[in-house]
Amino acid sequence: MIEFSVLDQLLAKEEIKLLKARRDRAVDTKDWDLYRSLHADDHVSHNQGFERWETADIMIENVKALLGENRTTVHHSHTPEITFESSTKAKGIWGMEDLIFDTASGELLIHGFGFYHETYENRDGKWLFTSRQLKRTLVRECPETNKA
Amino acid sequence: MIEFSVLDQLLAKEEIKLLKARRDRAVDTKDWDLYRSLHADDHVSHNQGFERWETADIMIENVKALLGENRTTVHHSHTPEITFESSTKAKGIWGMEDLIFDTASGELLIHGFGFYHETYENRDGKWLFTSRQLKRTLVRECPETNKA
Amino acid sequence: MIEFSVLDQLLAKEEIKLLKARRDRAVDTKDWDLYRSLHADDHVSHNQGFERWETADIMIENVKALLGENRTTVHHSHTPEITFESSTKAKGIWGMEDLIFDTASGELLIHGFGFYHETYENRDGKWLFTSRQLKRTLVRECPETNKA
Repeated sequence: MIEFSVLDQLLAKEEIKLLKARRDRAVDTKDWDLYRSLHADDHVSHNQGFERWETADIMIENVKALLGENRTTVHHSHTPEITFESSTKAKGIWGMEDLIFDTASGELLIHGFGFYHETYENRDGKWLFTSRQLKRTLVRECPETNKA
Repeated sequence: MIEFSVLDQLLAKEEIKLLKARRDRAVDTKDWDLYRSLHADDHVSHNQGFERWETADIMIENVKALLGENRTTVHHSHTPEITFESSTKAKGIWGMEDLIFDTASGELLIHGFGFYHETYENRDGKWLFTSRQLKRTLVRECPETNKA
Repeated sequence: MIEFSVLDQLLAKEEIKLLKARRDRAVDTKDWDLYRSLHADDHVSHNQGFERWETADIMIENVKALLGENRTTVHHSHTPEITFESSTKAKGIWGMEDLIFDTASGELLIHGFGFYHETYENRDGKWLFTSRQLKRTLVRECPETNKA
């Protein structure tokens, strides 16, 4: 199954963790050019509570509409489980927490937890996100309404 | 002290981080078979506020009783310090945060912080947890009661 | 630009992540000797809302004054982006969350989020922090006052 050396696999894992780090920073600093550059054109998103977004452009349009204006966001990702199908295809599961605040009032609107299930591909020497599915364990719509 | 190559040590560290990632996901998704498979039979737990649990089976029985029914949990672990005593024995310290919610009401019952001090052993080619001690810096029993 | 092998770079990255882990643990357990040992003498801090601290000694004096007495703190750092300028100089960006509690009352005083922008140098074979800048995305002065 694994077609590449253990050292190459360690390096690929570091590249994928860096990809993830940039994604979380890009969304929270609203660096949409960076955000777009991390995703393959044919990236598919399927996040609980939302319809499928079948391309990277549709995804980023929706993310910007949801989080771009009047919202301050925090996306933190934890303890990855990255496995390789080949030297150019990988899967990852990350624990996650997100917070969405109204920027003007500072009110916490949404506080969520769950797991990102993702796929990555190395295309032309560069690792990119090819799919993302967010499986929630808990979403709190504040104040204090739980939608587990 | 370290009896194995730097590359082997990097690979062992990745295996231990993967073990930890699976543990946090197993408890929060209530995948008790996975949870059990990550721990050596003779695993010892000593978490602040609880008596020692001298085997993995006793530990998991207690964890299921505390968190398995009617509770939604979040366990996030951060910035590991992993050191090797030999090629088959390691220690780790992880920053941690946990949240325990009542699933039905969504009420936050406990919000805690601290450090996991753990040991790991490679037995028959597989890294397993052999002990875990949770040292708390803060536990908030909600609402707003602090037990530092 | 990178003057050392990919394996050496992986090892250096692990050393820097360990440095960061020790820093977060040192501040939250108030282990000031450990904290000081992680920083170069000429370490420069520039955290939003504070003046520049031009040496490690000035920095630690301020950190102790702010957090050392009567405060329980949590500093968690996430998904590093570490890049090397040479085999002895590196930069890092980390997502971060911090909480500052009044120890006696348990009251949450400050809850913040942002990104640490740091530099590191290997001096005499040991990686040290040489600068730290905290760029905030959000600071909540509790209860419920937002200073984004």
